[in-house]
Amino acid sequence: MAEAVLALFPDAKFAIGPSIEDGFYYDFDLPRPLTPDDLPVIEARMREIVAADQSFVRRELSREEAQDLFVDQPYKLELLDDLPDGHITVYTQGQFTDLCRGPHVERAGQIGAFRLLRTAGAYWRGDESRQMLQRIYGVAFETEAELQAHLDKLAEAAKRDHRKLGKDLDLFSIHEEVGPGLVCWHPNGAMVRQIIEDFWKEEHHKRGYGIVYTPHIGKLDQWKQSGHWEFYRENLYSPMDVDGQQYLLKPMNCLGHILIYKSRLRSYRELPIRMAELGTVYRYERGGVLYGLTRVRGFTQDDAHIFCRQDQIRDEVIAVVQLAQFMMQTFGFQDYKLVLATRPDKHAGTPEVWEHATAALTAALESLNLDYEEDPGGGAFYGPKIDVKLADAMGRDWQGPTIQVDFNLPQRFDVCYIGDDGGEHLVTMIHRTVLGSMERFFACLVEHYGGSFPIWLSPVQARIVPIADRHIEYALKVEDTLRRSGIRVDVDSRSERMGFKIRDAQMAKVPYMLIVGDKEIESEGASLRLRSGEDIGLCSIDEVQNRVRSAIDSRS
Amino acid sequence: MAEAVLALFPDAKFAIGPSIEDGFYYDFDLPRPLTPDDLPVIEARMREIVAADQSFVRRELSREEAQDLFVDQPYKLELLDDLPDGHITVYTQGQFTDLCRGPHVERAGQIGAFRLLRTAGAYWRGDESRQMLQRIYGVAFETEAELQAHLDKLAEAAKRDHRKLGKDLDLFSIHEEVGPGLVCWHPNGAMVRQIIEDFWKEEHHKRGYGIVYTPHIGKLDQWKQSGHWEFYRENLYSPMDVDGQQYLLKPMNCLGHILIYKSRLRSYRELPIRMAELGTVYRYERGGVLYGLTRVRGFTQDDAHIFCRQDQIRDEVIAVVQLAQFMMQTFGFQDYKLVLATRPDKHAGTPEVWEHATAALTAALESLNLDYEEDPGGGAFYGPKIDVKLADAMGRDWQGPTIQVDFNLPQRFDVCYIGDDGGEHLVTMIHRTVLGSMERFFACLVEHYGGSFPIWLSPVQARIVPIADRHIEYALKVEDTLRRSGIRVDVDSRSERMGFKIRDAQMAKVPYMLIVGDKEIESEGASLRLRSGEDIGLCSIDEVQNRVRSAIDSRS
Repeated sequence: MAEAVLALFPDAKFAIGPSIEDGFYYDFDLPRPLTPDDLPVIEARMREIVAADQSFVRRELSREEAQDLFVDQPYKLELLDDLPDGHITVYTQGQFTDLCRGPHVERAGQIGAFRLLRTAGAYWRGDESRQMLQRIYGVAFETEAELQAHLDKLAEAAKRDHRKLGKDLDLFSIHEEVGPGLVCWHPNGAMVRQIIEDFWKEEHHKRGYGIVYTPHIGKLDQWKQSGHWEFYRENLYSPMDVDGQQYLLKPMNCLGHILIYKSRLRSYRELPIRMAELGTVYRYERGGVLYGLTRVRGFTQDDAHIFCRQDQIRDEVIAVVQLAQFMMQTFGFQDYKLVLATRPDKHAGTPEVWEHATAALTAALESLNLDYEEDPGGGAFYGPKIDVKLADAMGRDWQGPTIQVDFNLPQRFDVCYIGDDGGEHLVTMIHRTVLGSMERFFACLVEHYGGSFPIWLSPVQARIVPIADRHIEYALKVEDTLRRSGIRVDVDSRSERMGFKIRDAQMAKVPYMLIVGDKEIESEGASLRLRSGEDIGLCSIDEVQNRVRSAIDSRS
Repeated sequence: MAEAVLALFPDAKFAIGPSIEDGFYYDFDLPRPLTPDDLPVIEARMREIVAADQSFVRRELSREEAQDLFVDQPYKLELLDDLPDGHITVYTQGQFTDLCRGPHVERAGQIGAFRLLRTAGAYWRGDESRQMLQRIYGVAFETEAELQAHLDKLAEAAKRDHRKLGKDLDLFSIHEEVGPGLVCWHPNGAMVRQIIEDFWKEEHHKRGYGIVYTPHIGKLDQWKQSGHWEFYRENLYSPMDVDGQQYLLKPMNCLGHILIYKSRLRSYRELPIRMAELGTVYRYERGGVLYGLTRVRGFTQDDAHIFCRQDQIRDEVIAVVQLAQFMMQTFGFQDYKLVLATRPDKHAGTPEVWEHATAALTAALESLNLDYEEDPGGGAFYGPKIDVKLADAMGRDWQGPTIQVDFNLPQRFDVCYIGDDGGEHLVTMIHRTVLGSMERFFACLVEHYGGSFPIWLSPVQARIVPIADRHIEYALKVEDTLRRSGIRVDVDSRSERMGFKIRDAQMAKVPYMLIVGDKEIESEGASLRLRSGEDIGLCSIDEVQNRVRSAIDSRS
């Protein structure tokens, strides 16, 4: 692709062009903005190059040779500065040479099928203060059939895109006036969120968690003491001055929970103490990586901290994994995998402490007979963790629940309990979320269900559609009956054609439509229709009510 | 009192000594800290002064005369700088003269009964950067009986103090490590708050409100456009820098709601649109005025904005007043008064706009046949408002619901609807809360009920107390039965004496205690006891369950 772009734009400057999970891209500095019409032209040129079937030849260069070769390519020169001597390699096919670590296919003809998908703006090195480049995304496969299957999947994913459905279903919005990565939840989206939160709270109360609220700001000193300021600073907001002291937007809920724990003496008999919060935290992310609800700057964690004795870790982790499994199952995720992430390079705490924590997590997973992968070095700076990756209806991975053991914060904040020996002992903390964040989990739900939420989560569960104005009175009576049994129902009393109103309800993914006209009034019922288009026919109001209620109650 | 203090501390410097709602105070700069033991000594001296029965003589002085008189009193000299010529008066009794606007009683002997209550630190002029002074608070009455009644009331208020009960009942805490005025809600307090919030959400859904969530930070520019930066700056936090732009902690929820409203075109047919949020806002208050949960720096408003046409204002205000009345009644407040607050000196908008808004509020109050007071100049900078002041069980006033019409923000943000004429019209906004803030309302509830929350709000509704260890199994079975019917219940299975456990449950204000022993197991029941100490006697578990459930369901 780079060779084809150079053929069309002889002055093109090349930045970087890696392979990524879903294909590849290349960033260019070009004399004019690309348009969608450019992509077929570049593709045509690429087909000629593939047909010419040149071989890719790898060469290792000295720094000076490379600098000579790329003298007109300032981005390559900058990349060269970061490469250690002896690791500078280029690949050449025909007349075209590019800096590349490789590997490559042997010959261009081996490339079976490809497609350029789209262009996007991208800052050089992801740094908003530097040059804005033009990125071309593409995919390549061995066969045309595989390419087509991938394109079909992309089309389906685009239909399910939570950013698109967020707009179509009036779920949420993100506004330049407020700031990127900061989410406004509209009534429809907030309704789904509230149902999830209510369910979450109920399940946590049942399992012996105490739910708390803690402030969104606090003195910076706490975050220095915790180590976050040291280990995590690039993701923290800039401090605010209050009465000459620095305050920080909280990036985590831990410290408030520690203060509540420490607000009185705790005995070994009281442990474990499980403290949960739907805590909204703010973390700085570079503008370039923000994406819909999945990568944001403010999000609400379904957070909890378990304060326990060392001998309780295993059982507590088991209970959290089981709660996470229950949650995944309830929300309709059958497939997920567990990843045990271990000590990263940048970390707090001693090797012994890390070993102990990792062993406890392993023991819990093994006692549940669960398969898991390891992610060496993937842990948080303060401890090892178990991450759960959900697979959605399209088989894509989502970051789900996480469970992290922490021997670090108890030490830094002297979080103790009085043991049966009458002495003070450091408590062990387990950080955990079972959904992740409301924002990301909601995005995942939207895409998993393509916006057709299960009944119990649907913002509007039933819509009554009177055929003519004279049926409105009856419609309102039915609405009242259903509402009294706790069903979220509305009436579309607009003076529009029936077909329009039904299509509208289907677009809004309302699970049940109740059409009411003369026939239905006479039989004191309603004609039931599903959002799938399926026509159930005339039912009594009791039947409708039972059907909807049982779908709600079973969370099916 | 000042004369008595001078007699005991000849070097005392005098600051200010006003009468306040509940008595009087005087701020002194003294050579040593006062102790509680000093107060009786000062009182004794005061009694001598009263007995001497000198008259108070008023004199008007020129600035120069006053400056000569107070040459050794630097605080008085500073006060003099702020007094206009011709308004400088002093009062003398015996040898003692003080700067005072008056009026005074004629003779010291007219003071019937008094008591000095406590000392406190107070910054000169409330400014944390200036001298810390010592304040003595006192009260005075015509008769000893009135004084005693007041002291009794203070003792009762102290018992109900939400700061004291907040600690005793483990409801919340405020930590120096986080920052003053920032509240951590403990599981018990958070449970009460959650029940209030769930009830609040349910009632708002029923009344056609859409509930939303909006971010706690946003670009400062919005708050410049809104006028808050101009009119309200002293109560805003310092901005944060994000990517070179200034962001502010939100002091109000309005702007997020406006953006959601504006996220699509709105027709006159859709109005009114009612948007509600339990929105946590942050406002800067000086350290000196912070007080428990009633004056804080971060609080959650039960906020809503109604976007409507001008012809809908009256009906919407009526509905809000009725909702507020319903809320007050449900939470057990029979007495409240309505205050209509009108245009303040510092305000946005034209006189016409203010007149229109004030007329709409008046019309609503009158159509409900409600008595109300006027508070001239007490409105918000952006519009007139109706405030509801609750009277608690002790007859004290609390700031409750508020309803504010706003013609200002729609203009500043061009918030429109498409009229039946096809043209754009500015919408009218009504800001309203029906509880105020969760923090203040909760404090009010705590004091109103003296911590003995109504059953439906109690964090723990029933506690089962097994008499001996062999009764624990049965206790757990009863717990399970009650929990399944949605009662918040626990078991005190500690190896403590019965009397201790009952006293403990009473201290925790748990409404129902179920004592279970051999007799109760045999009859498959429990001995029921109320937190008042009343002994109901042996009941079947069904009876207990019905009794508790009916108290919960009726919110009585």
